[in-house]
Amino acid sequence: MKSLNIPETNLKRVVIIGAGFGGLEVVKKLSSKHYQIVLIDKNNYHTFQPLLYQVATAGLEPDSIAYPIRKIFKSKKNFYFRNTVAQNVDTEKKELHTEDGILKFDVLVIATGSTSNYFGNKRIEQLAMPMKSVPEALNLRSLFLENFEASLLTSDLTEREKLMNYVIVGGGPTGVELAGAMAELKNHVLPNDYPDLDIRRMRILLLEGGDSLLKAMNKKAGSQAEEYLQKLGVEVWLNTFVNDYDGDTVTTNNKSLPAKTLIWAAGVTGNLLEGIPKESIDRGRILVNDTNLIDGTNSIYAIGDIALMNSVGPMGDPMVAQTAIQHGTNLAYNLNALAQGKSPRPFIYNDKGSMATIGRNRAVAEIGQIKLKGILAWSTWMFVHLITLVGFRNKMVALLNWVQSYFTYDKGIRLIIRPFKKSKNVHDNLPPHS
Amino acid sequence: MKSLNIPETNLKRVVIIGAGFGGLEVVKKLSSKHYQIVLIDKNNYHTFQPLLYQVATAGLEPDSIAYPIRKIFKSKKNFYFRNTVAQNVDTEKKELHTEDGILKFDVLVIATGSTSNYFGNKRIEQLAMPMKSVPEALNLRSLFLENFEASLLTSDLTEREKLMNYVIVGGGPTGVELAGAMAELKNHVLPNDYPDLDIRRMRILLLEGGDSLLKAMNKKAGSQAEEYLQKLGVEVWLNTFVNDYDGDTVTTNNKSLPAKTLIWAAGVTGNLLEGIPKESIDRGRILVNDTNLIDGTNSIYAIGDIALMNSVGPMGDPMVAQTAIQHGTNLAYNLNALAQGKSPRPFIYNDKGSMATIGRNRAVAEIGQIKLKGILAWSTWMFVHLITLVGFRNKMVALLNWVQSYFTYDKGIRLIIRPFKKSKNVHDNLPPHS
Repeated sequence: MKSLNIPETNLKRVVIIGAGFGGLEVVKKLSSKHYQIVLIDKNNYHTFQPLLYQVATAGLEPDSIAYPIRKIFKSKKNFYFRNTVAQNVDTEKKELHTEDGILKFDVLVIATGSTSNYFGNKRIEQLAMPMKSVPEALNLRSLFLENFEASLLTSDLTEREKLMNYVIVGGGPTGVELAGAMAELKNHVLPNDYPDLDIRRMRILLLEGGDSLLKAMNKKAGSQAEEYLQKLGVEVWLNTFVNDYDGDTVTTNNKSLPAKTLIWAAGVTGNLLEGIPKESIDRGRILVNDTNLIDGTNSIYAIGDIALMNSVGPMGDPMVAQTAIQHGTNLAYNLNALAQGKSPRPFIYNDKGSMATIGRNRAVAEIGQIKLKGILAWSTWMFVHLITLVGFRNKMVALLNWVQSYFTYDKGIRLIIRPFKKSKNVHDNLPPHS
Repeated sequence: MKSLNIPETNLKRVVIIGAGFGGLEVVKKLSSKHYQIVLIDKNNYHTFQPLLYQVATAGLEPDSIAYPIRKIFKSKKNFYFRNTVAQNVDTEKKELHTEDGILKFDVLVIATGSTSNYFGNKRIEQLAMPMKSVPEALNLRSLFLENFEASLLTSDLTEREKLMNYVIVGGGPTGVELAGAMAELKNHVLPNDYPDLDIRRMRILLLEGGDSLLKAMNKKAGSQAEEYLQKLGVEVWLNTFVNDYDGDTVTTNNKSLPAKTLIWAAGVTGNLLEGIPKESIDRGRILVNDTNLIDGTNSIYAIGDIALMNSVGPMGDPMVAQTAIQHGTNLAYNLNALAQGKSPRPFIYNDKGSMATIGRNRAVAEIGQIKLKGILAWSTWMFVHLITLVGFRNKMVALLNWVQSYFTYDKGIRLIIRPFKKSKNVHDNLPPHS
């Protein structure tokens, strides 16, 4: 197999797989004096995942939350980006096999993140809508709008009910924020767009297996979020598990629901690649020590969602952006230190707090001992997300969209650029009912 | 077949097919007091086609040039939009057949516009890239960026040359503006993005069958545009016809060229639908009288690119946005007049001038006797396009993009959201060499 076209130098080569929050941080902080840096990603852009739900609900365009990787690192020396897919790693030969050739490395950083976890249910995997990438969020946006157009084109009331029921599975931040944004569309945008459709018949249901929402936050935040959602008209069903879905009916331990749209935000699992020693894999993630090194290797690291740091307990650090960023910072520091003959420092997680927004002026936030709600939490949310969005232009466009949407109660980007349903028969290749 | 779900009223029903410049104008100006108005379009948005080339070259996001139809007409009374595809018209029964059912009409307005004309060459049709719609412009954007990424992944120099040669066919405004925008990418953006690629090797060729560019404008504008393009590094080949293309080599009457990308802007033809009397079709367009009425019918009209008004000469009015808008205005006026028992007025074309921009500070414009070039023409172009973009938000975002790109020499939206090549094997279904 041919080798990937990267110049040979005297420097040690660090290969990073994945341009998520963790991977970007390693590249930013790693010294070009000591290392040749090669970044691999299947996309040519970084995705600001916490705002994907705004793309799905027509509030932001993809380019506000996606940023070209080459643009981020245009001034980085000894840096090479390759837009290809990592397939497997040969830990003995220190080679990474990609779709476009083999790449030798001295140090490998696996920052491949996570993907939707369907807990083995293949039918749900094929029929539910995930929301972990920009194309998936755009598919969801197209599907919402296509469903409303289809509701107007049918006179079959059962069909229309199915088209207008939206079931979101998973009461974490993604599910909660998405439900809130959809409720705002329902309350403020859709009645104007579809005057000849009774939008009150649209139902938004948020299903959560546990007994409260936002389990990663305090109990009060969960019940506050539930109250906010109910005020917006979202039906919250706690202690509810989805057992099956056939594209028309959602079967739960509670009741069955007719629905053409099931959105899956119920869990994630590591995006593994081949070649990782089996003993280092635990529940879909890679076991690492307190310097993010994979046990049994001396130069292969895993950071972010994919990494399970066993020193911090059975669940590792939370699978969120701030963990990935902090893992990345610490690893870059350590690699720079090792190049200078210094010893690495162990990772210590610094919880900067968490928050979730539920429509205009409503949010919950938890920063250390401080608990915020309402407009104060919402303003904090806005501020934090704006300052962390990459790039001046993205910030300006996102701000412009949010300001306009705040004052007009409108969400402007209601475009079906790539129809979802018409381009894909969702019942194709459906596995038989088990 | 079921009927399309539109309420019956006492008003006469006007059905408009197509939400381009012409169709929108009819809906805007048509009186809801006299008519029930039904608009059909296969997309849920209006496309501002003159700026598609900016989407293709990463200068603007689709939402800056696409606008949701329901949002435009949210205050229009007696108005119904249906997102479906018109298939054929039954002129006797006054029925329009669509993908989703039958629609009876009293008056039908065909405003289906035009599509790329390959003059019967099926191989070119399948392998060339058109740029008449938002998805096509996005495909082109993806393909450009994928080609550069692929150039870095290959060490085969012949392959790399093919990836870096871009052939644009057609020296009208679309071809000229696209070539200019690509040259700016080459000169200012790509060298930063691809420091390890010799961007000077990228070639942009503009092929035109006639002996000058911009034939619809004065001779001087054409040669000025040619000079501007050459300054930017575009190779302009006049008197050159493409005879064949196999995906790797462009064969012309002049020389052959290795190129993986052939962009087709060489001509358009009417977007016809079934059921139009054959005697009313001439060179792919529909013959209409001076009130846009199709001969032999008393209530079926055609406007814009699809209409060929024989009273103005063998070519009809120019196939541009201003013709469509003026056709639409006049037709709405006439339909409103007819409802009040008044007689229709014949259409008179008012040439408001034409212009083309070729990179920053360079454009040519012709407004009546006034001929502009350079920065004055370019400022006029900017102003006219900004004020005609639909919607406040679109104007603001487009302005923001242009201002930022003007000062930074950057084009920010370099995202491969939907890979073009990897999702489609361009050699599939290729007809045999003729």
